[in-house]
Amino acid sequence: MRPARLEAFADGVFAIAATLLILNVDAQVTDGNLGDNLLHIWPSYLAYAVSFVTIGIMWINHHTVMSQLGKVDRRFLVATVGLLMCIAFVPFPTRLVAENIRGDNAEPAALAYGFTMVATAIMFNITWFYASRGKRLLRPDADPAVVSGLNRAYLPGPWIYLAATLIAFASPVASVIVFLALALFYVVESSVLGSNSPAA
Amino acid sequence: MRPARLEAFADGVFAIAATLLILNVDAQVTDGNLGDNLLHIWPSYLAYAVSFVTIGIMWINHHTVMSQLGKVDRRFLVATVGLLMCIAFVPFPTRLVAENIRGDNAEPAALAYGFTMVATAIMFNITWFYASRGKRLLRPDADPAVVSGLNRAYLPGPWIYLAATLIAFASPVASVIVFLALALFYVVESSVLGSNSPAA
Amino acid sequence: MRPARLEAFADGVFAIAATLLILNVDAQVTDGNLGDNLLHIWPSYLAYAVSFVTIGIMWINHHTVMSQLGKVDRRFLVATVGLLMCIAFVPFPTRLVAENIRGDNAEPAALAYGFTMVATAIMFNITWFYASRGKRLLRPDADPAVVSGLNRAYLPGPWIYLAATLIAFASPVASVIVFLALALFYVVESSVLGSNSPAA
Amino acid sequence: MRPARLEAFADGVFAIAATLLILNVDAQVTDGNLGDNLLHIWPSYLAYAVSFVTIGIMWINHHTVMSQLGKVDRRFLVATVGLLMCIAFVPFPTRLVAENIRGDNAEPAALAYGFTMVATAIMFNITWFYASRGKRLLRPDADPAVVSGLNRAYLPGPWIYLAATLIAFASPVASVIVFLALALFYVVESSVLGSNSPAA
Repeated sequence: MRPARLEAFADGVFAIAATLLILNVDAQVTDGNLGDNLLHIWPSYLAYAVSFVTIGIMWINHHTVMSQLGKVDRRFLVATVGLLMCIAFVPFPTRLVAENIRGDNAEPAALAYGFTMVATAIMFNITWFYASRGKRLLRPDADPAVVSGLNRAYLPGPWIYLAATLIAFASPVASVIVFLALALFYVVESSVLGSNSPAA
Repeated sequence: MRPARLEAFADGVFAIAATLLILNVDAQVTDGNLGDNLLHIWPSYLAYAVSFVTIGIMWINHHTVMSQLGKVDRRFLVATVGLLMCIAFVPFPTRLVAENIRGDNAEPAALAYGFTMVATAIMFNITWFYASRGKRLLRPDADPAVVSGLNRAYLPGPWIYLAATLIAFASPVASVIVFLALALFYVVESSVLGSNSPAA
Repeated sequence: MRPARLEAFADGVFAIAATLLILNVDAQVTDGNLGDNLLHIWPSYLAYAVSFVTIGIMWINHHTVMSQLGKVDRRFLVATVGLLMCIAFVPFPTRLVAENIRGDNAEPAALAYGFTMVATAIMFNITWFYASRGKRLLRPDADPAVVSGLNRAYLPGPWIYLAATLIAFASPVASVIVFLALALFYVVESSVLGSNSPAA
Repeated sequence: MRPARLEAFADGVFAIAATLLILNVDAQVTDGNLGDNLLHIWPSYLAYAVSFVTIGIMWINHHTVMSQLGKVDRRFLVATVGLLMCIAFVPFPTRLVAENIRGDNAEPAALAYGFTMVATAIMFNITWFYASRGKRLLRPDADPAVVSGLNRAYLPGPWIYLAATLIAFASPVASVIVFLALALFYVVESSVLGSNSPAA
């Protein structure tokens, strides 16, 4: 299989997972005064924006990885299916956070979101290091700067997300704010600084 | 990343956002006499048609933009994610308008729809002018007529949509009718006149 | 825009509309004895199969049309958006038929399904004849046999579907059986006879 | 139609069917203590993972088949539509199993899942043997080892799944565990052993 084929499938999952996020906002509208209701559900808009941008940044990073590959094998395909399984899961904890961050259930919601991000970061590491270890699947002309940039950027990912997740035991709101800040950081880093480092 | 890769992802979001619109019609069917019910929910059909065509026209315009680009960079990717975030949001206010335009909640519904369109038009401007300013991402052989056509067409977009939105404070129905007329205008302009000017 | 770009977007809408059909089956499951429930909702399985195959055949036909085109223009794009709007609408009346064909609301459900098929057939005619009239968008080497086959096959489509729809005023069940037979005919004709004539 | 066109459409259905699985998890969350709730619905996570991986492995296998084809005809297209119809159906029995495996309705849920897998395996056989019988659609340079590997792997599929399904009459839980073990086997076989044999 050429990497391009795999990318087409992965792009589909990224695009669908991002677009399905709107259903979470939709489900929050209740009967009664619509104006009040639309203002009251502001965490849903924020959750929508953060998750959409997070999935978008992950999509950009996934492309950066794929651009360095010259071939894929079945193990890499299976690992990618596992990665996509994590990404397609994101809309679920996103909804939990949006609906519960202001109530008694804030802690389990924040933990669900955090552990999903940790699992996603681990799968990003597995796919990347399986492909790059010993240049197993790299293109002969892979860019050493991009490769070492990905190495440096991916390794701390799970630990950073784990730390952000554990904060939820002390304060779910603080944990969510850290995830917000991380998403904002990746957007600024990608768009303002324009570097090649990945975001998940 | 080649522009074609970005287009594949964007096409996915456009196609999914448009196809999900039918779920809004679905949710309107209630128990009781189905014939009466199907006639009563006519605003849902109209909202479905207007939003589907609007997303379709935006997809055509997005292609017009992409056809003039020779490359994309990470800032452009992030801006495009922001644009797609607005487009994937459209089914939500569409449903609000369809369900509430005949009741007490018409004003917030029309405002939600209008501000979504304003935000989308702003993101279209950001992506286009980022790419075209100083010919940053344009193809060497970009068509000057298309480029200046896009310049002329995009700039007034947010202001036109803002004006249409503000009408909702006086009359939500009038605001929705203006948005309807704008969609109809873009269809006629694209299909009958066949010009190259964009629609959002 | 090259026809291939348009096909990628259209393929997305076809694939999503078909895959969303399963949500209609899902919505039919109620509490209580699941075994009885799963047998009771057999019209939903039949509706799923018929609509999935119908959308699949339409997708094949759409490809047949596109394979004869050498270019597309904006009017053709807008017409295709209209066609896709009809196809993405199909899951809605499909659900109505599945849920109501055995009850008092069979007639409006069958009419909704029928008129959706009529509208789809009309849009297929509009896109095809706009493209083929005077060879406007045809490839220089378009296959005359395929072109005249499409001409012969598309023209009667709306009338056949209209006749099948009007039967619903006398007997909704008979109307649905005719649509079932038409779908079966197109499958047999495509798969057993292997001809090139289109199905919608 | 070139095989690549068909793959694009099939990829869309695979990607959407897999991504829609998260809606099943979503629907399981109820009011009350979210922490308890999230622990209680663990079968939904397992069902999500098993079905996502199963669809992913099927996607890999489908690519293996397509990689050996040099052309497709209308009968093959119709057969593929039938195959995709089975794959897009998978989210439905997955949800039934996740929601009912611990209650009185475990048997019909397990049977629904099992028969869906049997039907999918049969459609995989039909598409593959139609294409490979007498090398009807094979590329001139199709790999004989891959072809005979697909022959050996596909034929027993329906019988293995049928046996796993029939176990549900004695013990639905045992049947589901067998399906779990089969999915795990295919993942291990694909990723650890890295062979070319298909999984559905």
